[in-house]
Amino acid sequence: MFIDLETIRKFSNECFHIAGVPEKESNIITDVMLEADLREIHSHGVLRLPVYIQRLKKKLVKNKAIITNANETDAILQMNGNNSIGQIVAYQAIENSMLKAEGTGIGLVSVKNSNHFGIASYYSLMAAENNMIGIVLSNTAPLMPAVGGTDKVIGNNPISIASPLKDEYKIVLDMAISNTAFGKILDAKEKGENIPKDWGVNEKGLPTTDPNEILNGGLLSPVGGAKGFGLAFMIEILTGVLSGGKYSKMIPSMYDMTQNQSISYFMLTIDVKQLLSLDLYYESLDQLISYVKKSKKSANTEEIFLPGEIEFRKAKNNRTKGITINLQTYNNLKELGGELGTKATI
Amino acid sequence: MFIDLETIRKFSNECFHIAGVPEKESNIITDVMLEADLREIHSHGVLRLPVYIQRLKKKLVKNKAIITNANETDAILQMNGNNSIGQIVAYQAIENSMLKAEGTGIGLVSVKNSNHFGIASYYSLMAAENNMIGIVLSNTAPLMPAVGGTDKVIGNNPISIASPLKDEYKIVLDMAISNTAFGKILDAKEKGENIPKDWGVNEKGLPTTDPNEILNGGLLSPVGGAKGFGLAFMIEILTGVLSGGKYSKMIPSMYDMTQNQSISYFMLTIDVKQLLSLDLYYESLDQLISYVKKSKKSANTEEIFLPGEIEFRKAKNNRTKGITINLQTYNNLKELGGELGTKATI
Repeated sequence: MFIDLETIRKFSNECFHIAGVPEKESNIITDVMLEADLREIHSHGVLRLPVYIQRLKKKLVKNKAIITNANETDAILQMNGNNSIGQIVAYQAIENSMLKAEGTGIGLVSVKNSNHFGIASYYSLMAAENNMIGIVLSNTAPLMPAVGGTDKVIGNNPISIASPLKDEYKIVLDMAISNTAFGKILDAKEKGENIPKDWGVNEKGLPTTDPNEILNGGLLSPVGGAKGFGLAFMIEILTGVLSGGKYSKMIPSMYDMTQNQSISYFMLTIDVKQLLSLDLYYESLDQLISYVKKSKKSANTEEIFLPGEIEFRKAKNNRTKGITINLQTYNNLKELGGELGTKATI
Repeated sequence: MFIDLETIRKFSNECFHIAGVPEKESNIITDVMLEADLREIHSHGVLRLPVYIQRLKKKLVKNKAIITNANETDAILQMNGNNSIGQIVAYQAIENSMLKAEGTGIGLVSVKNSNHFGIASYYSLMAAENNMIGIVLSNTAPLMPAVGGTDKVIGNNPISIASPLKDEYKIVLDMAISNTAFGKILDAKEKGENIPKDWGVNEKGLPTTDPNEILNGGLLSPVGGAKGFGLAFMIEILTGVLSGGKYSKMIPSMYDMTQNQSISYFMLTIDVKQLLSLDLYYESLDQLISYVKKSKKSANTEEIFLPGEIEFRKAKNNRTKGITINLQTYNNLKELGGELGTKATI
């Protein structure tokens, strides 16, 4: 189903308004979700609106952000989200990181006690739009086993790295350290689809094509075995441990309506022009891009894509048309609107 | 074959001495190689001594380091290796990065025009030994195709992340962004062994089990397809592009004896105690480690290992006994000693 962008934006903002979220903040949360849907990363789009509202209503997430800063130098900062909305904490964290980078060339903001922030690339791209490189890491509830283990001990901890580019399109990697994102399993479940066998295992540690088996006590598999596990483990250190926050088994699922989540982030920005001229940076990058885009293609390949390029094109195309959501998500949103008594309809 | 550590150290140092390398510098290069062999990462050990010496003799690498600094702030620095020995440039770069981190909590050193530095974890561990987190990236000669491509356009760009730990063992990830390291293919070739099918493709883009087919015009495969390619591409930006150095097809193989390599690094260090107390950091890390090490094991697993733990144990065990090298490497070293007329023998 197509929904006009302004219709869904208005609806989402009203839902947050009713849940007590200030307008400026609901604008940000809604925008992060819609950017995901525009890029067709629906697993992180308005699909999540009902659970976000539910957590707000249960006071598992604060509806008005209270964020405190500590341990500041010219280049680093520790932020405590105090269980505020993830998107608001993350937005402020990347802005603080960029302020530090303006001063010293690099900024690191380490964040604890926050919540799910949507797509990591939303924040890394904020840096790229300001001629900075942005590196954004987050931990998540544990979803994957260690190598040789069968317990959930590590998140599929997303990593996003974005680079400025003279173009409207900015280069951006945004990946979870699992063969797939947890949200894609949710998405497959909502669509009633099977999943590939290497996405995860069921509670007995056996491969499965049924998304429900992973959602009910199963596990995601790390990408590349020991490499993926190692990377996820180091991200857990760079987020949960370095921030003084929570990690691994301390973090419950977003769908557990009895506890706070306490997610941690690592937000690093580098002000390119303080290391070399932007002209040289852009020139080198254009050359690198040209090597890749113009390289010989295999028989069944029409075009070689850079990180984030496909999603950028989808978003550009969808921006005038609106977003597509499946019937299950649409019905869930209608139901949410009914419960909250929104005036806006979808 | 076992070789006593001091015997091989003396031999290696004399080789570099004859090639005109100052003693303090040859001590570092030799130590980086031996630490690789001690960890049984033989692909980056003394196996490389002959090619390092050959490049020095051909003046493709400077025997006396000349390193220049530019674009400095309190937290960042650009270094130009001016084609000096990789290990010397990398050692100085991570030291400079740590000096910055002592001041502002974080230090980034961006390095251009350097050479192969051996194992990345040697440098990230220097940070970890000083209660800092170390993140070390390097580009390499292109060895992998883009997704859907058949040209070599991207390096298998190693990433190493190390964390301090109260223990003698420090947590350290050290991985190449390919299903395997190039050096392991060299190692298999020297041992005359076949390799697994997903390590790379031959010059026609077809999977192969023959290491020679990869060494002669073939390609390594990125780990996890688009995820691995994306990560390698972003590392290329963070190293070659951000430093103003070379990247992708501009970098020839280390075995090409007609050109400079011009490798770039990204050396980031974070001084943990400026973000939170070391006590809290260690306490959290111990808890995270305990979640992982004590998690339920699958039927055929005896112990769950942390990143770098297996290599640490091997090194500890080998340190008193010496290193093992295969006969081909031994013969190559004997031949090198003969050519150079070393007094030290192995």
